[in-house]
Amino acid sequence: MTKVAVVMGSISDWPTMKLTVDVLTTFDVIVERHIISAHRMPQQLMSFAKEARMNDVDVIIAGAGGAAHLPGMLAANTIIPVIGVPIQSHALNGLDSLLSIVQMPAGVPVGTVAIGNAGAKNAAYYALQMLSLKDARLIEPLEAFRTQQMQTAIDSEALFDE
Amino acid sequence: MTKVAVVMGSISDWPTMKLTVDVLTTFDVIVERHIISAHRMPQQLMSFAKEARMNDVDVIIAGAGGAAHLPGMLAANTIIPVIGVPIQSHALNGLDSLLSIVQMPAGVPVGTVAIGNAGAKNAAYYALQMLSLKDARLIEPLEAFRTQQMQTAIDSEALFDE
Amino acid sequence: MTKVAVVMGSISDWPTMKLTVDVLTTFDVIVERHIISAHRMPQQLMSFAKEARMNDVDVIIAGAGGAAHLPGMLAANTIIPVIGVPIQSHALNGLDSLLSIVQMPAGVPVGTVAIGNAGAKNAAYYALQMLSLKDARLIEPLEAFRTQQMQTAIDSEALFDE
Amino acid sequence: MTKVAVVMGSISDWPTMKLTVDVLTTFDVIVERHIISAHRMPQQLMSFAKEARMNDVDVIIAGAGGAAHLPGMLAANTIIPVIGVPIQSHALNGLDSLLSIVQMPAGVPVGTVAIGNAGAKNAAYYALQMLSLKDARLIEPLEAFRTQQMQTAIDSEALFDE
Amino acid sequence: MTKVAVVMGSISDWPTMKLTVDVLTTFDVIVERHIISAHRMPQQLMSFAKEARMNDVDVIIAGAGGAAHLPGMLAANTIIPVIGVPIQSHALNGLDSLLSIVQMPAGVPVGTVAIGNAGAKNAAYYALQMLSLKDARLIEPLEAFRTQQMQTAIDSEALFDE
Amino acid sequence: MTKVAVVMGSISDWPTMKLTVDVLTTFDVIVERHIISAHRMPQQLMSFAKEARMNDVDVIIAGAGGAAHLPGMLAANTIIPVIGVPIQSHALNGLDSLLSIVQMPAGVPVGTVAIGNAGAKNAAYYALQMLSLKDARLIEPLEAFRTQQMQTAIDSEALFDE
Amino acid sequence: MTKVAVVMGSISDWPTMKLTVDVLTTFDVIVERHIISAHRMPQQLMSFAKEARMNDVDVIIAGAGGAAHLPGMLAANTIIPVIGVPIQSHALNGLDSLLSIVQMPAGVPVGTVAIGNAGAKNAAYYALQMLSLKDARLIEPLEAFRTQQMQTAIDSEALFDE
Amino acid sequence: MTKVAVVMGSISDWPTMKLTVDVLTTFDVIVERHIISAHRMPQQLMSFAKEARMNDVDVIIAGAGGAAHLPGMLAANTIIPVIGVPIQSHALNGLDSLLSIVQMPAGVPVGTVAIGNAGAKNAAYYALQMLSLKDARLIEPLEAFRTQQMQTAIDSEALFDE
Repeated sequence: MTKVAVVMGSISDWPTMKLTVDVLTTFDVIVERHIISAHRMPQQLMSFAKEARMNDVDVIIAGAGGAAHLPGMLAANTIIPVIGVPIQSHALNGLDSLLSIVQMPAGVPVGTVAIGNAGAKNAAYYALQMLSLKDARLIEPLEAFRTQQMQTAIDSEALFDE
Repeated sequence: MTKVAVVMGSISDWPTMKLTVDVLTTFDVIVERHIISAHRMPQQLMSFAKEARMNDVDVIIAGAGGAAHLPGMLAANTIIPVIGVPIQSHALNGLDSLLSIVQMPAGVPVGTVAIGNAGAKNAAYYALQMLSLKDARLIEPLEAFRTQQMQTAIDSEALFDE
Repeated sequence: MTKVAVVMGSISDWPTMKLTVDVLTTFDVIVERHIISAHRMPQQLMSFAKEARMNDVDVIIAGAGGAAHLPGMLAANTIIPVIGVPIQSHALNGLDSLLSIVQMPAGVPVGTVAIGNAGAKNAAYYALQMLSLKDARLIEPLEAFRTQQMQTAIDSEALFDE
Repeated sequence: MTKVAVVMGSISDWPTMKLTVDVLTTFDVIVERHIISAHRMPQQLMSFAKEARMNDVDVIIAGAGGAAHLPGMLAANTIIPVIGVPIQSHALNGLDSLLSIVQMPAGVPVGTVAIGNAGAKNAAYYALQMLSLKDARLIEPLEAFRTQQMQTAIDSEALFDE
Repeated sequence: MTKVAVVMGSISDWPTMKLTVDVLTTFDVIVERHIISAHRMPQQLMSFAKEARMNDVDVIIAGAGGAAHLPGMLAANTIIPVIGVPIQSHALNGLDSLLSIVQMPAGVPVGTVAIGNAGAKNAAYYALQMLSLKDARLIEPLEAFRTQQMQTAIDSEALFDE
Repeated sequence: MTKVAVVMGSISDWPTMKLTVDVLTTFDVIVERHIISAHRMPQQLMSFAKEARMNDVDVIIAGAGGAAHLPGMLAANTIIPVIGVPIQSHALNGLDSLLSIVQMPAGVPVGTVAIGNAGAKNAAYYALQMLSLKDARLIEPLEAFRTQQMQTAIDSEALFDE
Repeated sequence: MTKVAVVMGSISDWPTMKLTVDVLTTFDVIVERHIISAHRMPQQLMSFAKEARMNDVDVIIAGAGGAAHLPGMLAANTIIPVIGVPIQSHALNGLDSLLSIVQMPAGVPVGTVAIGNAGAKNAAYYALQMLSLKDARLIEPLEAFRTQQMQTAIDSEALFDE
Repeated sequence: MTKVAVVMGSISDWPTMKLTVDVLTTFDVIVERHIISAHRMPQQLMSFAKEARMNDVDVIIAGAGGAAHLPGMLAANTIIPVIGVPIQSHALNGLDSLLSIVQMPAGVPVGTVAIGNAGAKNAAYYALQMLSLKDARLIEPLEAFRTQQMQTAIDSEALFDE
């Protein structure tokens, strides 16, 4: 069985990161969710990252906004893959979040997805795609999802005149 | 054994993407490299992505610049994880590459790394971290690398007065 | 008779792209409309583009947002002129859409218009101007439209004090 | 026979716009080149645009930088399709040129291509694609060009180890 | 007596440019207002600019948004000082308007003020400051205005606890 | 006789602002030049601005870079028109300079010109255009300059094949 | 006893700067608040800054928006530490405010905090941290605040399912 | 006696941060310098910050580039004031560094200075200004420095014609 930890810097990120959890729970993986503020809980951040493997976490998804340090600091403390979700911030619409997450220095990668809701969903799909490397039983439902979203897109032509 | 395909849109991206290959080849994985232009070889792009699993590719790393469609179009045709490297472009310094790669719609994720050389290296490390989900023999060398780069950073204080 | 295909990546782009269709239908051209997601329907995208000439399409107008790959990937698969409409995106207001569409590499052009509604309308006018190269009967109504919008602008001074 | 007018705002734009002319002259079209500064030669701009049809111009390509008004003002004075090339400017790298050209109001479109050299080449290809609507003899050489650039891209893999 | 012409590209700019007129009318100058779209009324633009001196216009204030060509094209056709007001645009919040107006090439200046309402008011004050070079009777009311706005700022401390 | 004061924040701005002085000295006006750093010489800034009218200064041109406060603070202390020149800065290419100068609050305008060299020249022309309101003898040479630069632009076509 | 002066350029900045005052008043420091517009009250600005030490001000917090000159000009007139708060502006969302405040030239620093509300609060905390250098009695309440916000973050996990 | 710790994320930041140290060493304070990579030495970062007070550090200056997490993570682990210096990065010229440092969430401030060299120098002056709250002997040399840089600015007018 595989496990994904969904971490966010603040409860105010939950409306976005809930979309991540919602996608994950439709697949057969264990999902943990945590609030770990990089700036308010730095010790917990480090403990969480260092103990993640021991706790059988396979992939970490981290959402943060503004000077978004959570994904990068988690990545600095583990070699478990970290996926970063730039939360759409108030003043700069998430451009600050995006640059703070994606522009990591050599040696400590964070795989970054789109700003906001689309990114939150994609973080889940990306985690599942990674996990399918380990657990081939995820391949079929992921391909089924792709087929279904293709079909939904095709069918949406019928909505033109509504 | 695990396999990574490193794809770029143009031979002009090779000086950047060579850094990806250089990292990968210091680890025990099979590395393929390809030039597949999304705009000049769209049929090959689709074939490559669709046949990737059959060809035992575990992770795809794709570098592209400007209106960088290669990573996203590869991701659209496979559920193998795709890592996108925004090549530093001439006029806009890679901001166009970054936004073209990272802002993917829900359902088709590309894990994006930093613009340019740091990103090219990190794409390799990120692929290896993913592969360690499947092949636990990668964990030790990845952790050794982290330890070594920590040591290099520590030792660099000695360079202050040179 | 001439034909324009109006393509969009998602039904959510329809409120914008409807403006394109509305302009086109006031002129004597055949208009097709399609939803073809570059990322969810890549095979259909390629088929559509490759068969466009056979289907007597003269010009393709494609609207997309975020990492907007639809116009460029259509252009990669046909030499029929493609006009790209950057949809105003949520987080970055269409700057991502604009750069993803306009910054195409040499050899595969997309003629790009303004972000959002003004661009959607202009895509239609631009298509009609192109078509007037082939069908001179469009010249007069296009010039009449210009005269009329000039007159509307002139007349709008009367609205100053309403 | 078809004719393309390549217009630029200043002789300093010639190193970029020469790439447009170079592409066009490899195809069987008549090419005119002009320097018409929107701000220094406004009367000539208007005359040129108004007389373009009479002078058998089929497509206008206009390159300009900074507060780049040339493409839009040409478009305001003719319904012949205008393709805008944003010249890479000194301080803002062509972002100012791009926005000044692409963000046209409804009713007066300019089809905009990429900033700088790639855009200059693509303006030529885009003009040729438009002209193929009128002159079907251009279709074959344009498709041959696409095939050739695909082949060049494919062959470039051989350059990996040089 | 001195005269200021307030020109805008569209009636939709009037809510902003009304602020310009409102300031001007509290001073002893003649104010004209016009709608002259650079792209829909290019001939009228040129006539207006060329005849401005003959019509005793001392300063021109021009507001425009998006690919804002009106101020620059007026400036190209007269040596009467032109003040440009970047209208706050929909997608890019006036950054496009600002760059299209301010980045004029050497030889044809437009004095540019802030985006939106503050700029609209300041265009009026700037025009009045220029006019005071010619008509010294404006100096005293302008200095009185400065004194009054200083006093208003000082008095506003009293509003802290309301 | 009319007088223009050219002020800059640092001797490092002189290579840019020299272009302003060079233009002014070809016309029949008195030119003063000063280094007044807003941040290093705030008292002198205020004295200079307050005494400018008494010193017969008609127009002030101020160049500054980065957090460019010089033009705005001069404008705050006089109703003599101030023209702001955004110096091209090192990290942000003058975007910081531009925004710091142009985004002035209502009541205290600075007429802003382009970033860097083009702006420096245009500040001079703009000052001369303002001064022509007061001194009609400047009209003819300014119009002659316009005619000459139009002729230079026209003649530059001859340079195409050099 | 220590004293902080909270200064803002306009009463319209009070809803933001009130957050600064609210934080400060929960600690044992004296708080003054002032409206001092850099552009409307330049003489008062200079007097205030020059007399600040005499008035026992230990730290100055200054909020301003747009072409935000207040923090930098205060810093130019005193060596008391100045903390700058970029107010979120209308058109450019505070990017103009941020760059106008942070990009100060060498020798005259302004310590800049985040755009808008988070920055307003942080200006207070930063001032208190500075003051703790002088008044060690502030250390304990500051550390208590950190502990409390850590606890609040930890406790917020309980809000997930509300 | 007072002590400042100058920390940087990489030896490659030393050419910038050396300017900080150079300023500090001309004043009577103790200066420590360290390389502590947030991402490569996270444990050391935390230890350093937590032990800083015990080690008599009064102010921390931290320089970092790209996804610059060092200043913010130091600030998260101590209430000693942290000054952040955004290093000018390769692709985005330090805009990423700036936003990653300045956009901190409420409760954990970092006082941010300008991008690059000016910021590096100003971090030193800002630290000294803070320290003067505690050690009044710094006031006189800081005021002397201000007087001297004012004099240098005044004297630089003599360089106009060199």
